[in-house]
Parts: sequence; structure tokens; C-alpha cells
Amino acid sequence: MAGIAGTEWTAEMEAEIRAIAEREMPEDMTAEDKKVVREARKKMKEIEKAKKKERKAAAAAAAVSLAESARVDDVEYLDSSKEPEQVYGDYKLIQSRCAKTGSGRKFTKVEALDASQIGKQLWIRARLHNVRAVAKNAFLILRQKTSSAQAVLSPSDTIPREMIKWALRNITTESVIDVQGQIVASEVKSCTQNAIEIAVQRLYVVSKAAQPLPFLPDDAARPAQEEGVHVDRKTRLDARIVDLRVQAHQAIFRIQSGVCQLFREFLDGHGFTEIHSPKLIAGASEGGANVFHLEYFKNPACLAQSPQLYKQMAICGDMERVFEIGPVFRAENSDTHRHLCEFTGLDFEMAIDEHYYEVLRMIDGCFTAIFDGLSSRYAAEIEAVQRQYPFEPFKYRPSGENLVIQFPEGIAMLRESGVEIGDFDDLDTESERKLGELVKAKYDTDFFLMPRYPSAIRPFYTMPDPEDPRYSNSFDVFMRGEEILSGAQRVHDMKILEEKIKALGIEVETVRDYIDAFKFGAPPHGGCGVGLERVVMLFLSVGNIRETSMFPRDPNRLTP
Amino acid sequence: MAGIAGTEWTAEMEAEIRAIAEREMPEDMTAEDKKVVREARKKMKEIEKAKKKERKAAAAAAAVSLAESARVDDVEYLDSSKEPEQVYGDYKLIQSRCAKTGSGRKFTKVEALDASQIGKQLWIRARLHNVRAVAKNAFLILRQKTSSAQAVLSPSDTIPREMIKWALRNITTESVIDVQGQIVASEVKSCTQNAIEIAVQRLYVVSKAAQPLPFLPDDAARPAQEEGVHVDRKTRLDARIVDLRVQAHQAIFRIQSGVCQLFREFLDGHGFTEIHSPKLIAGASEGGANVFHLEYFKNPACLAQSPQLYKQMAICGDMERVFEIGPVFRAENSDTHRHLCEFTGLDFEMAIDEHYYEVLRMIDGCFTAIFDGLSSRYAAEIEAVQRQYPFEPFKYRPSGENLVIQFPEGIAMLRESGVEIGDFDDLDTESERKLGELVKAKYDTDFFLMPRYPSAIRPFYTMPDPEDPRYSNSFDVFMRGEEILSGAQRVHDMKILEEKIKALGIEVETVRDYIDAFKFGAPPHGGCGVGLERVVMLFLSVGNIRETSMFPRDPNRLTP
Repeated sequence: MAGIAGTEWTAEMEAEIRAIAEREMPEDMTAEDKKVVREARKKMKEIEKAKKKERKAAAAAAAVSLAESARVDDVEYLDSSKEPEQVYGDYKLIQSRCAKTGSGRKFTKVEALDASQIGKQLWIRARLHNVRAVAKNAFLILRQKTSSAQAVLSPSDTIPREMIKWALRNITTESVIDVQGQIVASEVKSCTQNAIEIAVQRLYVVSKAAQPLPFLPDDAARPAQEEGVHVDRKTRLDARIVDLRVQAHQAIFRIQSGVCQLFREFLDGHGFTEIHSPKLIAGASEGGANVFHLEYFKNPACLAQSPQLYKQMAICGDMERVFEIGPVFRAENSDTHRHLCEFTGLDFEMAIDEHYYEVLRMIDGCFTAIFDGLSSRYAAEIEAVQRQYPFEPFKYRPSGENLVIQFPEGIAMLRESGVEIGDFDDLDTESERKLGELVKAKYDTDFFLMPRYPSAIRPFYTMPDPEDPRYSNSFDVFMRGEEILSGAQRVHDMKILEEKIKALGIEVETVRDYIDAFKFGAPPHGGCGVGLERVVMLFLSVGNIRETSMFPRDPNRLTP
Repeated sequence: MAGIAGTEWTAEMEAEIRAIAEREMPEDMTAEDKKVVREARKKMKEIEKAKKKERKAAAAAAAVSLAESARVDDVEYLDSSKEPEQVYGDYKLIQSRCAKTGSGRKFTKVEALDASQIGKQLWIRARLHNVRAVAKNAFLILRQKTSSAQAVLSPSDTIPREMIKWALRNITTESVIDVQGQIVASEVKSCTQNAIEIAVQRLYVVSKAAQPLPFLPDDAARPAQEEGVHVDRKTRLDARIVDLRVQAHQAIFRIQSGVCQLFREFLDGHGFTEIHSPKLIAGASEGGANVFHLEYFKNPACLAQSPQLYKQMAICGDMERVFEIGPVFRAENSDTHRHLCEFTGLDFEMAIDEHYYEVLRMIDGCFTAIFDGLSSRYAAEIEAVQRQYPFEPFKYRPSGENLVIQFPEGIAMLRESGVEIGDFDDLDTESERKLGELVKAKYDTDFFLMPRYPSAIRPFYTMPDPEDPRYSNSFDVFMRGEEILSGAQRVHDMKILEEKIKALGIEVETVRDYIDAFKFGAPPHGGCGVGLERVVMLFLSVGNIRETSMFPRDPNRLTP
């Protein structure tokens, strides 16, 4: 055994120390004996640590030797000044073996190719989307994100027939490959690059995909209305890595990224500060139901259902305007098209001067900026989604002009159309949809804000309406007839909050931290929480929230 | 009892239904009897729901009536055309009672005041920092974020003596107040607005702070080296809401927000897509130790210790370059100045062409952009922190020129200075600090990148060094002699990964999802994870990570 801190340990010595270390220490043991046991335990820890290090070092060495013996056709990837003799084959593992400053090769992106490069010789690293034989040639489709190009291997002085055979037989689809070739003019039907192709000169496999694939990306990309093989959602999500390679799915997550960026840009421009509130909290978040519980160093804890308390605390701490983008957790056993057990919340909270419509105006401006920004910056991505999941463009109005419908007016519209609903009832999924249709028909918009919800269906921290306490200063916002956002003016008076909590029969001590936040003066304030995945789902009308969550979590799914 | 769905329920009827609903349903019960029980259960649910709604409505009504009876001097806040008769007093609860479009009052920010406004009459909403009597006048210090101004109440035709008495006796410090007054020229020593003050005409309390305060913001703001009352960290964090109102603490979180914004700006500009990976995961994250466990719909789950697996999966899904800002969880029982059990991770991962130095160059560019951006955009905030926590400005080099020290060189420097350390030992806090000092003395920089860490002290997914497997393609990055970032080239070959895992004695099935991510072709890639709170702590040299986490979580703190 190797030395630890300069000492050599034999197996016998180790066994001896372990035996001492494992002794119990009853209270009547002498202090001296206890010291011996403690020292042995300390030594055992050192030994274990050293062993772990050895195992790791051995594992690294084993991995490298495996890497070196793994392939038959290993091609060394070194400097471009010493291009390998073999014009095709499997690369050795790319292990940063070339110079730190790079090999001298430059890789061109497929989307950056154009006719101006005809005649040029380029390197491209891409995924092999598919390969087929046509006469004596091999046609390879190279794919990169939402772009594709054709590469052709034709027999010649420098391209041996074996190379073409190898390309057809040995390179599996979805492998990552390096292609060096000349750009030539060509008419190509099936690729985004339709005026050029690559005449291959060198071809190497960087990383080989195992076969069979869980499904073909082309099958997962087929629109529902088109004939052919379709892949069900469960299969796709089980192999999300392959599913993500589908153009429309790539695009969805580019758009999702865009929503966050646009949300932040707008709020940054309006004096908001980004915060990061804790997800591990004591007691139960917001009253108790649907909470994930865990143990925090032997104390009960739970996962935050929203940053509600903390963003309000930031306001009480004079941050004035704050926002947060982060995970929220709901242990809700709802297996629907629009619920997730973990989703991304876009939250903001702001001090208001006088009226909660200040929050509504901020939301109107923010969402208009998001929709405008998506249309202008993500046109290509929206089109990619559109091709696979055809949808009506999302209708909304310019900033400051978006439709505001009072809750009682919404109820009246529903009743008029024959829906049975009480004045103070909440809207269920069906009545939300119906209301969306009615609003679309009457006002020609997919986006509206609905204030003045009944107090009885809102959380305890909601400010009651000043005229009629059966209503409240709260609102939902809808896209295509589905709720994407809830918000309100909050109760900023500690006594009133306490009174409401008592009247509801909630044990005051369980929400003491919440109440105390308002003890030392609180500005009037309001805010809202948005479900990111819902916004993307409804903007693109993809029908299921699992399509807009990269690794969705629902009551039946915790992997991958 | 009120009607439910049109029916009146008496207490007796309810008791009867409840009795049926509570019956058990043994297997031998007749189908008819079962139906009766089921229907009773359904009805009970309706009754419970209706009762809950009633309680909520009652609570809202109670709160409003309380709001209306809460204060003696209630001043109605309506439209500016009907300014209240009383020129001073407590406002009624600001409950969005004015017109939706606003009352007509406009509030001016304290930081926006200047001499050009002399003679103008303005409204200001601010916190009362303190109030004192001088002769027959009352001097109020108004505070807003990092700004302050003086307001003066002097007896006159319109300012009764009672109003001055009231201001001195009834308004508690830290209350939120509305002041209307005229801007007049004045020399003021103790405020950021030092050339003007406000001659008060109207004065109202928006939200009254309870007394006593847990501590005075001025005491919490006192630099350690200054004589006077100091507030210990525990007391401050227990009342973080008040602590956040301290100028330097406000500034710290503005700067924290800035770090995230600058990190994203740089990566957005380099083709990265933002992702949101799940925090709830099956099995144990990255091998098992220090993980928070919980139950997920009766299945074992844990909280992600990093987005490691998922950002790599996104790369395998061809996202090419991704980043994430989100919470990471470590159930580590370490109560040190630089550990938290929940912190904010800034993670990125990128496909590389050839060499992991591509990642190092990205980090160099990104951090230079962050440091440059902080200095240019947050100069006022840095100064505010500087006043309370004096520190040496952070030294770094221009983009592309930052210091890179190989791990073996770092070890050699430490040994030369007398530190006993083995070739493949990890650096502990002390040796990190020492190395930071040595580097600062030799190279005059607080920022350096250290690649080529020993394999034995890095996670199993780290790519071994191609020349010497005892080392690896991994690195740490340091600020002022403390690690803020770890990163590496990852093993992108499934077989090698599996081999390493087996050699380490980890049960392969527990990390099956991880391994499988590389099954269908994976581009070479690398990335890193940064601790946001550490970056802010070290840039500002505030000495304890709890100062840069708004609501810190450590083994002894789960609240507020």
C-alpha cells in the first residue's frame, strides 16, 4: 500500500488500526483509552482518503489505456501541419492532445456556408443525419442544430473505394463526424443548404453513436397530420437527448431562452434588481398543501412553492423592484397537459405608489416586449416549430392597449354563452378555454388581463377590493384561453394580515416569518408569478407543457 | 349555512352526510351501499370546499373592517384634486382606492433631486431614517435605497405646532411616509442630497414601523474599525429585512444582480442558450455524498448538487453551448466563511473542437467582462460597500492575458515557500490562501486560472490528461486566493466513462442515466460551475459568504 504522509502502511497495520477504531467508547472508558480510539479513527479516515485517491488515479489510468486500445483504426488528431496519413477512420479520443492554442484546423458552421465559399476547402464537424449509396457514391447528410448540408464521397485518386464502403457500413447515423472537403455548387432538396454541397476529401468519426437508436430524429420530427412513423411522447422523453436534436425541439428551447432574456431586459430597463431566494425553507410554504418535505440537518424543511415570501421581504428591505427566475416546486398529483411538479417561475414584485394597476401596466409592457422580441429575434425558430406543429400566430395588442376584462365581466360573458357558473366561482380549465374563445371572437386577441378576482379563491395575502371585500385586488393573465400568470396587490399591513390568517383558521405561528416581514414598515406593493413553460407552450400552441420543459417532472416522471 | 349549488344544508344534514361518508367500505359491501358512501364522500368534499370559500370571504371582509377601524387619524388617499383637509396624519390603508389611472400625484425619487428643482413643490415617499427636534422645528431624514435627504417642519400659518409634535412623537423611525414639500437650498451634512432640503407642507404615514427595531440600520452600517455600537451577523441575518436597508447591503445585492447580468450578456454574445435543468432528480447526484433526500410521489429522490448531468445532456442533444443560473444544494455540514448549503450556481457547458483550453479562454473572457462591467456600471455601489467594508481594488488583467498557472507549478511555489504538500494533494483553504498571496506577490494579480489538477481529486467524469493520466484536463479558478470555479473537459466516451465508474467501485446502475447520455454520439465538451456568492464575496472582499447571500442557508440556519 502506498505511503500516507510519508508512512508506509501494511495490510496488517491497517487491520490493527481498524480494529481499534471500531471499538465502542462506553462512558466508563478511561480518557487515555478513548484517546487511543479517537486517534485510530482519525488514522482510518486518512487511510480511507488515501485509498480513494488511489482508486481515482487507477481509474483515470485504466480509462486512458482503454481509450488507447478501444479502436482499430485510431487516427491521431494532432496539428494541422501533420494531418494523418489515413484520409478516413475513427479518431482516437479527442483528449486535448493538440497544442493548447489549437491544431490550426478551423471548423465552419453549417449555417455559415454559402455560395461565396464555392471552391474553398473547409472542415466541418457535424452529426451524421443519414447516409446512403447512390451509384458508386456515398451521400451524407450533415446536421447541426437547425441547419443541414449534403456531403458527397465519390471514388477518385484520393478517395479509395474502401473509404466509401466504410462510410456506408461503419459510420452509424447520429455519430459525430469531422469532414474536410471542397464546397461545390449543387442543387440539394432535403437540406437547409440547398445551393451547395461538400465534396469530401477526409472523413473521420469523432464519436460513434450506438445502434439501434431509440427512434429516428426524422420520425420524432414528423408532423402529426403527416403519414408515416410517429414517436409517442413517452418514448421521446425517455430519450430526450435524441429528441432534443429534432429541429423544432431545438427551436423550442431557443425560444424558451429568449423569453427569459426578454423578460429580464424589460425589467432591467425598469429598475428591477434580480434576486435569488432560497428554495429550502422552514415550515410549509404558503399554507401547506402540495409541498415536498425533506429533512434539513435533522430539522423539518420543505421546498418553496414560489418565491412569494422572499420577494416580498426584499421589498420590505427596500429593494423597491425585484425579479427572480428560478425553479418552483409543487407536489401536486395532477397529470394534465399543463401541470408540472417542477417548473420555472418568472416572478417580479414592486413597490406601488397607489394602485395595483401599476403592476398590470408593467405586465402589459413586459409581455408586449416579450412577444415583439420573439417575433423579431426568433423568427427562424418560430418557423421551425410552425413546420412541425402548425399553429395560428399569436394575437396581442401594442403595449398599453392590451385588453383588460374585469372578472365579473368574464363571468357574465360565460353565463351569456350558457356556462353555469357562480359569481364567486373559480374558472376551471374548461371555462378558461371557453372564455378565451369568447374573448377571441369578440375582441380578436389571444392575450388579456383579468383583474378583480373573488377574495375567496385567492391566497390569504391578497389585498381585498376597497369597495367590495368579496372581490380582491388580484388578477390572472391569459394566453389562448389558459392562465399563465397570477398576481395581486399584497396585504402590506401586519395587523390585517394576522387578522386574515386567524379568520382562515391557519395557525399564526406557522407563518410567523411571513407576518413579521411587515412589522417594521412596508411599502404598498404587488407583483406576479409567471409559468415559463406555459408561456412558451401557449405562444407556440404545442399543446403539452412537457414539450416546453427540457426534462419535465410530473407525478409519473422523475427521469431522465 | 349558505347554499351550495343551490341547495340549503342544515347542520343536521351535514352531520348525517358526514357519518355516511366516514363509513369504511369492506370488500363484501354491496355495490349499492358503496355507491351511497361514495356519493356522501363527494358531497362532503363539496361542503368542505364551500366552507373554505366562505371562510376566505369572511376573512377578507374582516380584514377590511379592521383596516377601516384600525387608525384614529385616518386620512383618505384619493385623487389629487381632493387633497385631504388634514395636512398630516396616518393614511388609511393604501388599497388601490384612487382612480385606476392614478391619483394625479407624482412621486419624485430622492436620488433625482437637485438644485434645479429649488422652489418646486414635490411629493416624496421614503423611509423615515430618523427625526429630531431642533428649536421649534422637526428635522426628518428621508431614506431611499442608497440615497437620503433632509426634510424640515417649521411652525407657520399652514404648519400647526401639533403637526410638529406629532411628527416628533408619533412617527416611528423606519416608517414609510409621504412628504409633500418645497425644495429649498440648504447645506446638509449627513445626507447624500447635501445642497437642498425639503420644506414640508404635508406629511402622512403610509406604513408605521413597530418599535423597538431589532437594531438601528445606522449601527448595522458602522464599519468594524469605527467606534460605536456594532450589530453581530446573527442578529442582522435574523432580521435581514432591516439589515437589507443598510446602504452597503443594498449595494451588495445590486452588484450580485450585476454579476448575473454580465455573465449572461457575455455568454449570449457567444452563442450560448439558457437552460433550466431539474433540481428534483432520481438516485443520487454525482456519486452520493452530501445530498438532500426527499420523497417524490413515494419514490426516492434528491436535490441536484449541480446541473452537471443535465447541461452535459443538453450538449449531447446538440444545444452546442448552454448556460444555467440556478440554485444548487449541498447537504454539507461545513460551517465555514465560504460554504452554504444552498447557493446560486453559474454554470456553462460547451462543445469544444479540440482542446479544453477553449473553455479556459471563454472563462477568461467572461470574467474579464464581469469585472470590467462591475467597475463601470456599479461604481456607486462598489463605493458604498467600500465605505463600510474597506478593501483593496480587485486586480486582474485584460481579456486573453490573465494568468494561467499549471497545478504542478502551483505546488512548486507552495513548497518553495515552505508548505508541505504532495504532488497530487488537493489544496486546502490555507494553501489556497497562501498560493494566492504568492501569486499576488510574484504576478500582481488577484485572478488566475489553474489547469492540470490531479485525476485523483476530481470527479469521475473528468477527462484524464493525455500525457499523464495522474493529471487531468481540469482546472480551478481563483479570486484573492480562494476557489470560485471548477471545470474540466468531460469524458464524452460512454465506454471510458463506464470503465472509470467501475474502477471507482461506484454501482453503474445508480448513474445509468448519466452514462446513457453518451450512448448516441457525443461531441467533445467541457464547462464549469461558478459560485455566485463567492464571486461577489471575493470581488468586494467582505469576508463571509453570508453577506452575499440574501437569505443564507447553512447547517444552522434555515430561516428567515
